[in-house]
Amino acid sequence: MAQSPTVPDPLTVAGSIPGVPPTLRWEGRADGALILLDQTRLPHEVSFRRCTTAEQVRQAIRELCVRGAPAIGVAAAYGLCLGTRPARDRSIDDFLRVVEGVGRHLDSARPTAVNLRWAIRRLERVAREHPSDRADSRWEAMLAEAHVMAREDAEACRRIGENGAHLVTDGAGVLTHCNAGALATVAWGTALSVLYVAKQRKRRFHVYAGESRPLLQGARLTAFELAAAGIDVTVICDAAAASLMRRGDVDLVVVGADRIAVNGDTANKIGTYLLAIAAKEHGVPFYVAAPLSTFDRDLPNGAAIPIEDRPEAEVRSAFGREVVPTGVRCLNPAFDVTPAGLIRGIVTEKGLLEPVSAENIGKIFA
Amino acid sequence: MAQSPTVPDPLTVAGSIPGVPPTLRWEGRADGALILLDQTRLPHEVSFRRCTTAEQVRQAIRELCVRGAPAIGVAAAYGLCLGTRPARDRSIDDFLRVVEGVGRHLDSARPTAVNLRWAIRRLERVAREHPSDRADSRWEAMLAEAHVMAREDAEACRRIGENGAHLVTDGAGVLTHCNAGALATVAWGTALSVLYVAKQRKRRFHVYAGESRPLLQGARLTAFELAAAGIDVTVICDAAAASLMRRGDVDLVVVGADRIAVNGDTANKIGTYLLAIAAKEHGVPFYVAAPLSTFDRDLPNGAAIPIEDRPEAEVRSAFGREVVPTGVRCLNPAFDVTPAGLIRGIVTEKGLLEPVSAENIGKIFA
Repeated sequence: MAQSPTVPDPLTVAGSIPGVPPTLRWEGRADGALILLDQTRLPHEVSFRRCTTAEQVRQAIRELCVRGAPAIGVAAAYGLCLGTRPARDRSIDDFLRVVEGVGRHLDSARPTAVNLRWAIRRLERVAREHPSDRADSRWEAMLAEAHVMAREDAEACRRIGENGAHLVTDGAGVLTHCNAGALATVAWGTALSVLYVAKQRKRRFHVYAGESRPLLQGARLTAFELAAAGIDVTVICDAAAASLMRRGDVDLVVVGADRIAVNGDTANKIGTYLLAIAAKEHGVPFYVAAPLSTFDRDLPNGAAIPIEDRPEAEVRSAFGREVVPTGVRCLNPAFDVTPAGLIRGIVTEKGLLEPVSAENIGKIFA
Repeated sequence: MAQSPTVPDPLTVAGSIPGVPPTLRWEGRADGALILLDQTRLPHEVSFRRCTTAEQVRQAIRELCVRGAPAIGVAAAYGLCLGTRPARDRSIDDFLRVVEGVGRHLDSARPTAVNLRWAIRRLERVAREHPSDRADSRWEAMLAEAHVMAREDAEACRRIGENGAHLVTDGAGVLTHCNAGALATVAWGTALSVLYVAKQRKRRFHVYAGESRPLLQGARLTAFELAAAGIDVTVICDAAAASLMRRGDVDLVVVGADRIAVNGDTANKIGTYLLAIAAKEHGVPFYVAAPLSTFDRDLPNGAAIPIEDRPEAEVRSAFGREVVPTGVRCLNPAFDVTPAGLIRGIVTEKGLLEPVSAENIGKIFA
């Protein structure tokens, strides 16, 4: 059966790294569904969730079945399509009200990654501004736009890799944190795309993946996809990073981002800020890799970035076994903010921003 | 039945914090046994191991059933008594050869904590220098010395608390790492002794305990004993520390030590160095608390401190479930070295060393 021309190229979207299942893909045409890789079960179980409602997508985002700022954005775009599909036969006004309501609901799934809001706004604009006076045509345009966003994300990530690969020198030790890989995006990843392209350019290097407590995206996901790509990777406990730097084992730190303010302050997985401080102490260059969709042009600096507090249980018993004594509280901030001053450069699909300054960031959007 | 006068005061040694079981205790007289709290099963199961041979003690040290530099030292002393007990009826020469052999074997149990070697040497000296020409008398003197060491450790720890309690200001947020508490010593602890005495002095404060991956001594042990003592404690993932400091929630960092070089460079649980760097970045005072038995007067600086590499499995599947993909390696350095320059002061039983310098350290031993 021929695929709709609006469905993105499966080679681009359905898993950029051989052996790594696709993060997300739209199955079928207008009556289709969003298929999400359930990342909570990796690395040992590869299973998928089939979402046909916005609520299912929102739940999948909340439970980190799909995670990573760029992937969340695209998943939310498809979620908005799913959530508004039943309203396709209504009047334009009714349809737009549903778009707005579902968009708000999806937007509240997670607070820190700006890509979520960015993606929803982009689809809302299509719904509002499309010239057709029929809701079903506008809805079709929204789905087409979601496909475009998926393809754009994969392409942007690939270009991020190309723009940052030269940072990986031959023989380098590279430290990364959490998962900013193919699994965090539609394809290729952000920080890990830099490594994939460096590998394609025959650079030899070794990666240290911080396990990223509490949910171990580094140990479970980054190690999984780098190993699948044939890249040498060693998992460390997050707190071992400074020790490796002191030994001279780390020549480059590269991480992803969940939201970047106009001045370059960057929210990313909890622990990133600590790495940036340690990198400064040891003179190790610290880079962020992210698509332009991760910049929040409404925020002058990082102080106003909302930091998600996730459930205590993730710290207390993330592995099915309680480790913290009953009655003792846990604190679980999911992200922290690294000030621009600690970031050597930001790798984007439009090039490498270095030094990180409001002026340079402004230029890239000009 | 009356206790031997050489058995230390059970009130001092058998659990200084109500609700916290004793780390170690000698049960019985010359034919007695060393009872070790099995800390690998805390906080949910309180069970003990009864050791009657040096090999059992060595195994318990290796498996972290007993851990914490001061507790390891005292346990090893008792282990040496147990291991040499069967040789009590031999000639002095034979007996001393057994003392040396068992001592060497115990010494190799763990490489980083210097207290282990210190304790064994101290008992070896008793065996060698005791005036009796009967091995069994010398052995009795060794056991008596082990009891003295246990009592001294508890007393030193108590004094560490008294010497450091003023560092905890009213309303302070205090960050600690791993477990440097009653469970790491015979009683009271080192870093946590400071908090226990501050609490007795009616200081109000809040403690953040870094969980201390991979083996979670912070989440399991520090949270357990602080909660038992009625001290407000919150567990955080290690990588969240810098974020808390930036928010202004941390006014003091106090940690223990496994070995301190003559210049003040300090080996402690992996992650300590990272905290010290973060504390410097945020202007938060960083203190080490340790008894004099933790100083290695043979080492001019921290570069020569041997760092134990522990099994990969502790990173890979510390929670009874594999989290790292099969085939991917893990690195598990158990300790790191914090340079003296990052340490504001060292709290010892002989007072507060501040600033940390070879000169000040020399004075305390003079």
